[in-house]
Amino acid sequence: MFRPHHMLLVKLGGSVITDKMNYRVLREDVLDRLAGEIAGSGEPTVVVHGAGSFGHVIASKHGIQNGFRDTSQLMGAAQVMEDVRVLNLAVTSALVRSGLPAVSLPPSALARLSEGKLENLDVDAFRRYLELGIAPVTFGDVALDVRRGFGICSGDQLMEVLARELAPARIIFCSDVDGVYTCDPREDPSARMLEVVDRSALDALPRTQRCADVTGSIFGKIETMLRIAAHGGGSMVINGLVPGRLAAALKGEEVVGTRVVV
Amino acid sequence: MFRPHHMLLVKLGGSVITDKMNYRVLREDVLDRLAGEIAGSGEPTVVVHGAGSFGHVIASKHGIQNGFRDTSQLMGAAQVMEDVRVLNLAVTSALVRSGLPAVSLPPSALARLSEGKLENLDVDAFRRYLELGIAPVTFGDVALDVRRGFGICSGDQLMEVLARELAPARIIFCSDVDGVYTCDPREDPSARMLEVVDRSALDALPRTQRCADVTGSIFGKIETMLRIAAHGGGSMVINGLVPGRLAAALKGEEVVGTRVVV
Repeated sequence: MFRPHHMLLVKLGGSVITDKMNYRVLREDVLDRLAGEIAGSGEPTVVVHGAGSFGHVIASKHGIQNGFRDTSQLMGAAQVMEDVRVLNLAVTSALVRSGLPAVSLPPSALARLSEGKLENLDVDAFRRYLELGIAPVTFGDVALDVRRGFGICSGDQLMEVLARELAPARIIFCSDVDGVYTCDPREDPSARMLEVVDRSALDALPRTQRCADVTGSIFGKIETMLRIAAHGGGSMVINGLVPGRLAAALKGEEVVGTRVVV
Repeated sequence: MFRPHHMLLVKLGGSVITDKMNYRVLREDVLDRLAGEIAGSGEPTVVVHGAGSFGHVIASKHGIQNGFRDTSQLMGAAQVMEDVRVLNLAVTSALVRSGLPAVSLPPSALARLSEGKLENLDVDAFRRYLELGIAPVTFGDVALDVRRGFGICSGDQLMEVLARELAPARIIFCSDVDGVYTCDPREDPSARMLEVVDRSALDALPRTQRCADVTGSIFGKIETMLRIAAHGGGSMVINGLVPGRLAAALKGEEVVGTRVVV
């Protein structure tokens, strides 16, 4: 039943499934539709989701990403874990309602960071659930850090380790814009969407255009995507807000988006 | 900050924090009060909770405890995991609201069964959170079984492994009656509460009095409690529905209940 070469790896960006401007607000209609598109693929799938407005604000306020400093951070860390679990429960529940059995695999329980890097992830648990026909769902979360006490395990760090270990047939990133742009297209009218991102596209980006967004520069994001894409059959960034685009991308059909090519 | 010899291990029975007669009904007032009593102890604590009406019915219906048989069970397994996570989120949230930072450590992510026995639990994760000052919360859940695919990891199995590995100063079981009875006191007027349960009390129970309840005979329950108590400084079964009893028991004060003595 489990054919590893057909395994799909999907990232639901926090900006797609949550309203990033409002604390703990879910985009329920978008989530339900995307869950249906994932369930419809019929292939073994691992879902990774970001934290969006359920995680970033409180995590930054308490400096969780820099590790344990003093006990004043503990309630913040616990609040972030609670908030991202509310979101995660909504995601697994939407998948189950769509007919796809799902299991939550939280980084706080099965990951270890070391100085902020994801050093250890129990990928065996992901494999075993996939073999059973249950879709593992993981997410940006607080996690133990063997050097710093705790830290933040991001969705992109999870994507990188899962892509390396599971060698998915396709890797799809769902964003809230059509693909990878030179800058944020909602803020900079000169932003261009890249049809293909590869090493030479990255090198061609002038330093001045490597503008920063909340989770790091586009430069850093492309670097990460290239590393992730190196482990998969095909890798794309698409717009998760457009109905049907994820379903088509999961089937390998041609869709609007940015292909990430190593 | 972390003194292992002061570590407390608390089981919140499913019959205490949920309405066992009604699917997915929480006893929110009881849970909030018990969370406050746990937070008030000021000692490092691990909380284990049962599934109650959030888990048992659907788990039995799909035979999850007997392992993977066919794909018709998968939606049931996923539904049980979703339901017990709703309960678990309520428990961790109540602890956080009471001022105790908590982290959920679900068996589905960090346990492995083998033919129904809990063979592997990542106790290192529990230790690390305790050292940080964050209370680990775990619960009866679906878990991977290396021989049967999946199975049920019960709260009592978790209690046994955690007691053995963490050597708690005190182990408290919160029930919905005053202690351990020879039979269910709500169904059998001849039921007597035992002040002390030890090996000789067990042997003195006539076979005819070893009446069965929903989770096995009282005989089996006492056997388990004796095994668990062997690893802790003091072990008690108390009534979690009586305000203040858990708080007093956690401080080591004399309270109504059954002492479990090895």
